[in-house]
Amino acid sequence: MPSGITSRPAVLLDLDGTLTDSVYQHAIAWCKALELAGISLSVWRIHRRIGMSGGLLAESLARETGHELTEHEAAKLRQDHARLFAAQLADVRPLPGAKDLMHHLTKMQVPWAIATSGALASAAPLLKLVAVPSGVPIITRDDVEHAKPSPDLWLAGAARLGVPAESAIAVGDSVWDLLAARRARALGVGVLSGGYGQEELERAGAYRVYEDPADLLLHIDELGIRAG
Amino acid sequence: MPSGITSRPAVLLDLDGTLTDSVYQHAIAWCKALELAGISLSVWRIHRRIGMSGGLLAESLARETGHELTEHEAAKLRQDHARLFAAQLADVRPLPGAKDLMHHLTKMQVPWAIATSGALASAAPLLKLVAVPSGVPIITRDDVEHAKPSPDLWLAGAARLGVPAESAIAVGDSVWDLLAARRARALGVGVLSGGYGQEELERAGAYRVYEDPADLLLHIDELGIRAG
Repeated sequence: MPSGITSRPAVLLDLDGTLTDSVYQHAIAWCKALELAGISLSVWRIHRRIGMSGGLLAESLARETGHELTEHEAAKLRQDHARLFAAQLADVRPLPGAKDLMHHLTKMQVPWAIATSGALASAAPLLKLVAVPSGVPIITRDDVEHAKPSPDLWLAGAARLGVPAESAIAVGDSVWDLLAARRARALGVGVLSGGYGQEELERAGAYRVYEDPADLLLHIDELGIRAG
Repeated sequence: MPSGITSRPAVLLDLDGTLTDSVYQHAIAWCKALELAGISLSVWRIHRRIGMSGGLLAESLARETGHELTEHEAAKLRQDHARLFAAQLADVRPLPGAKDLMHHLTKMQVPWAIATSGALASAAPLLKLVAVPSGVPIITRDDVEHAKPSPDLWLAGAARLGVPAESAIAVGDSVWDLLAARRARALGVGVLSGGYGQEELERAGAYRVYEDPADLLLHIDELGIRAG
């Protein structure tokens, strides 16, 4: 086998839309925060950017509307988004099968980690909500220079597990997760639970697409994920 | 030409996700209302049902979760959704180009109407928000026996304009709009502004898919919509 390819893949999991049902609340929070910054954008356009780094999301949306943000405005935007998302936190639930999938991976002694484009501050309550077992490596926006669609988050997750990215399966709900997986030379697997269409995820390079973590767990043998 | 086919099509417009940026708020309102009824469902599954009649949406989701609703529970669910959606009404905006598209159709003397799966009570503030010109026929859930994906709403819209449905272009953001258009033998045109993926709309039979009303207006000649 070429270097790095293995018959016992490690697993890297995205957080928002992959383990927690939080994408729609994020989209509405970004929409309101952008409006406070004087940028009017339809929610669907923002939805299609969720999973990108917040900085990149703001930049790309600002470019689209021709409204360039100063550093101060960008910082305020991120703060407003965090505050408006926190206000909806009580409505966020774990996705079906999220906890079961994590427990199954741990029980099978599959090396696994979480890698999210979110900052630790906004990810922390979600990590608590899904009760990530202690000892699981967690990579957030704060740990890398560039978030998805750059490969850094998946690469850092693989590095923390001590495995090459080529031996990892990277699971995410957004096009950015899958594009980042291809750049990292990991195998990207999509879930529909973030609200993207199946074809969008396939066209971004998904090896397989499942409905949500519960559906992935039901079909985990298709991915060659096996006990250690 | 076969009966009904014309070189001067009428236009039937959906409301939520087609003229108003209200789909994400509807999805979250349904999610919370369903949870109050003891039904836990991920937001993306609800999002994929928006645009159906509320009754059908509740029934299909209840069937999916194995939780059959009594008539009393179903009525309470609809009331809770209406209340929770109304609470978010201040965040809802007209979609880009919605007003321009309506004015353009009126100016060109194209016969046009609005046909929505929503009840008049929840549609009324949205119709006001986009400032529908007076005299435009408005068909709501209350006017027909079955909402989309049944063809009734599009058929009623065409009837109110005094044209056969085969001569109409039916514009909507959801798979249900497009399936209903095929059943009505109208030409279905999709918009991405409700947050479905382009391929989902194409697979449901969209003749063309545009980003939002502004993008449709920019390409209106592709549809053969012309001045009277």
